[in-house]
Amino acid sequence: MIKFETKYGYLDQDFASWQDRVTKAHNALVQKNGKGNDFLGWLDWPLNYDKAEYQRIKDTAEAIRANAEVLVVLGIGGSYLGARAFSEMVLGLYPADREVELLYLGNSFSANYFLQVQNTLKDKSVYLNVISKSGTTTETAMAFRMMKHWMEETYGIQEAKKRIIATTDAARGTLKALADQEGYETFTIPDDIGGRFSVITAVGLLPLAVAGVDIDALFAGLKEGMADFSSPDLDNNPAYRYAVARRILNESGKVAETLVTYEPQLAMFAEWWKQLFGESEGKEGKGLFPTSVVFSTDLHSLGQFIQQGSKVLFETLLLVKTPTLDAIFPDDGQNLDQMNYLAGKSLDYVNKQASTATLHAHYQDGQVPNLILEIEDLSAKSAGYVIYFFFKAIAMSGYLLDLNPFDQPGVEIYKKNMFKLLGKPGY
Amino acid sequence: MIKFETKYGYLDQDFASWQDRVTKAHNALVQKNGKGNDFLGWLDWPLNYDKAEYQRIKDTAEAIRANAEVLVVLGIGGSYLGARAFSEMVLGLYPADREVELLYLGNSFSANYFLQVQNTLKDKSVYLNVISKSGTTTETAMAFRMMKHWMEETYGIQEAKKRIIATTDAARGTLKALADQEGYETFTIPDDIGGRFSVITAVGLLPLAVAGVDIDALFAGLKEGMADFSSPDLDNNPAYRYAVARRILNESGKVAETLVTYEPQLAMFAEWWKQLFGESEGKEGKGLFPTSVVFSTDLHSLGQFIQQGSKVLFETLLLVKTPTLDAIFPDDGQNLDQMNYLAGKSLDYVNKQASTATLHAHYQDGQVPNLILEIEDLSAKSAGYVIYFFFKAIAMSGYLLDLNPFDQPGVEIYKKNMFKLLGKPGY
Repeated sequence: MIKFETKYGYLDQDFASWQDRVTKAHNALVQKNGKGNDFLGWLDWPLNYDKAEYQRIKDTAEAIRANAEVLVVLGIGGSYLGARAFSEMVLGLYPADREVELLYLGNSFSANYFLQVQNTLKDKSVYLNVISKSGTTTETAMAFRMMKHWMEETYGIQEAKKRIIATTDAARGTLKALADQEGYETFTIPDDIGGRFSVITAVGLLPLAVAGVDIDALFAGLKEGMADFSSPDLDNNPAYRYAVARRILNESGKVAETLVTYEPQLAMFAEWWKQLFGESEGKEGKGLFPTSVVFSTDLHSLGQFIQQGSKVLFETLLLVKTPTLDAIFPDDGQNLDQMNYLAGKSLDYVNKQASTATLHAHYQDGQVPNLILEIEDLSAKSAGYVIYFFFKAIAMSGYLLDLNPFDQPGVEIYKKNMFKLLGKPGY
Repeated sequence: MIKFETKYGYLDQDFASWQDRVTKAHNALVQKNGKGNDFLGWLDWPLNYDKAEYQRIKDTAEAIRANAEVLVVLGIGGSYLGARAFSEMVLGLYPADREVELLYLGNSFSANYFLQVQNTLKDKSVYLNVISKSGTTTETAMAFRMMKHWMEETYGIQEAKKRIIATTDAARGTLKALADQEGYETFTIPDDIGGRFSVITAVGLLPLAVAGVDIDALFAGLKEGMADFSSPDLDNNPAYRYAVARRILNESGKVAETLVTYEPQLAMFAEWWKQLFGESEGKEGKGLFPTSVVFSTDLHSLGQFIQQGSKVLFETLLLVKTPTLDAIFPDDGQNLDQMNYLAGKSLDYVNKQASTATLHAHYQDGQVPNLILEIEDLSAKSAGYVIYFFFKAIAMSGYLLDLNPFDQPGVEIYKKNMFKLLGKPGY
């Protein structure tokens, strides 16, 4: 269900020479005795997830869908990007017949943003899903207090309690305590699954299900990915091949990886990927700088730099075999625009010719290495499959760099500075 | 109206040592005898713009605002990014009391995107502004034919003619010929202003005025910028200081520049900036790779990489002194979330503490150079001012690299490949 192609990759090394390192890293991963092994809950999650909670997620989503026009998702980082990335991937940017719209708060301190989003909620039936492991993430906690007050004023205190759902720690933390005291329905963020891997838990699943994404299909994709990317053998595991290709290109002097898509609805997928990859390997002075473009749009902005600018990056193409929608370009009797040479062709056909043309322009003329990943389609099942692909790939990438791919110690430094400046008790 | 601060820049060279090179480049620019001097129409445009056309833009915008709910802007690259960047900067992402919404087509081949956007137009009063110098840009020409058919079916042929406005060459090209034959109102893309500088012409001004941006104020900002950034003297020209700082950091080994904002409504501003900078200096194997983040959102995704990952980038902070909207964080009697320590503080105050905290975390602990640009606010006047700042800065940056900052030869390569694959006559 995924094709990985390296022939445009300018890879100057044999994959076989990496097999020993890969096998060693694979064993550390599956035997759970490598770095960060207390955060490997995602590894067997497609089989070992909490079935009772999963059913409750589906029931709650159904109940929300029956009453809501908007679900406000309050979260930041992994508590924000997964729901947004995969609802947009599967449903598109302007879904027809949308029943419930997702809006996102708690991911910024901007008052401009908060007040404008809040203003759009007037006269709509609003539910709210606040997502935070501890409840003390400042962006989310501030937005939540303001939205809680708004919900209580709009719906009354009792009805507001029914419309607020908390996804948080199973037992500890301020959000769990608050939710219990208020009587909110709560879902669990497992202790052994980090934020950037949490889209496969209630963190991602509840908003995705509310938006109308088939989470059963997503889980089917996860399970298939888990099976398909289970081999330590580089010849039989495209996730590991991709990880090795990235290392080879990094060692050859490329410092940035640009994820390229040709579907605007994958722009947030790329943002999710940036967190997964940047946070997992960007430490100890190492890692590829993860960046992204949406072509052909950005061929008219960043295309020039990629084609002829400094040779610092390689491209990873995330291609989609079958688009969700397609249209035939119509004939025009007058042909004033001289475009009749494309009449009868489908837009997706033209999009694919553009991607082939660009691949050759960048690879041949530009000498920019291109790795190619092709997924089947933009379905929920493909979403699950590609999620697991990237999980496995970044775990291997991190272990090949001899670092812990599952922590994020650097994120705490600005927070500590900020708490000092804000006069937070204890800082 | 703009502050530029380099004390967190890790600049190991004296600006004074660059003055001779800057003076030489400045003279080439203002005497219009340097590289690409046939594309310097933007330089005196704030004074020398076509006053009659400017008035017609305002009148047309007023007429559209009286009748339209949506203006579909068809364009790609510079014919798309300026309108989107500066309408979002000034009006925000979810403007209250919005009269006319801008939607964007012709910037992609994706059928998913085209059909979903088109579907949202049902039952709305739609006007259309197609923007293309030649009329042969494939993305825009295909979308325009499909939208032209849709407009004619929806409104009838005569009414559709009144609802379609073409911004194109003054005399030549397929779009100009088509517009004349159909009797569309047309506006001009000057011959001596390239796409990425065209937001200050009808290309940007018409959609901005329709969206409700005060283009008189934007022009006032352009004029002020033109005066303020006119000196060759590095001590008196922050645009040139910024250009030199970028060169120093590039020469010291940084290969990427990350534009940092703290307002989500500046995300598309950063995309506009990426085109302006990447297309202007990304050639001859040179240039800084332009990338962007919106903090604090992306501190929870790319923050880890910037803080502790490989040291390949520097940050340019685009700070906003006064936000358009602000809100006071409320007290809560129960304080279940333990956030009362922030009660009475404004969101913007917290946002600014976050930016200060992050600056010190990245600069001190992370040893990441930070350049700081502070603009007054998100008004149309500030938009004009900062546009001219970046125009002048990138012209100087390109000349300091001894290249032509005003062409984009690399963009043609994928197009030529694509036309061959698509069987376009003549290829």
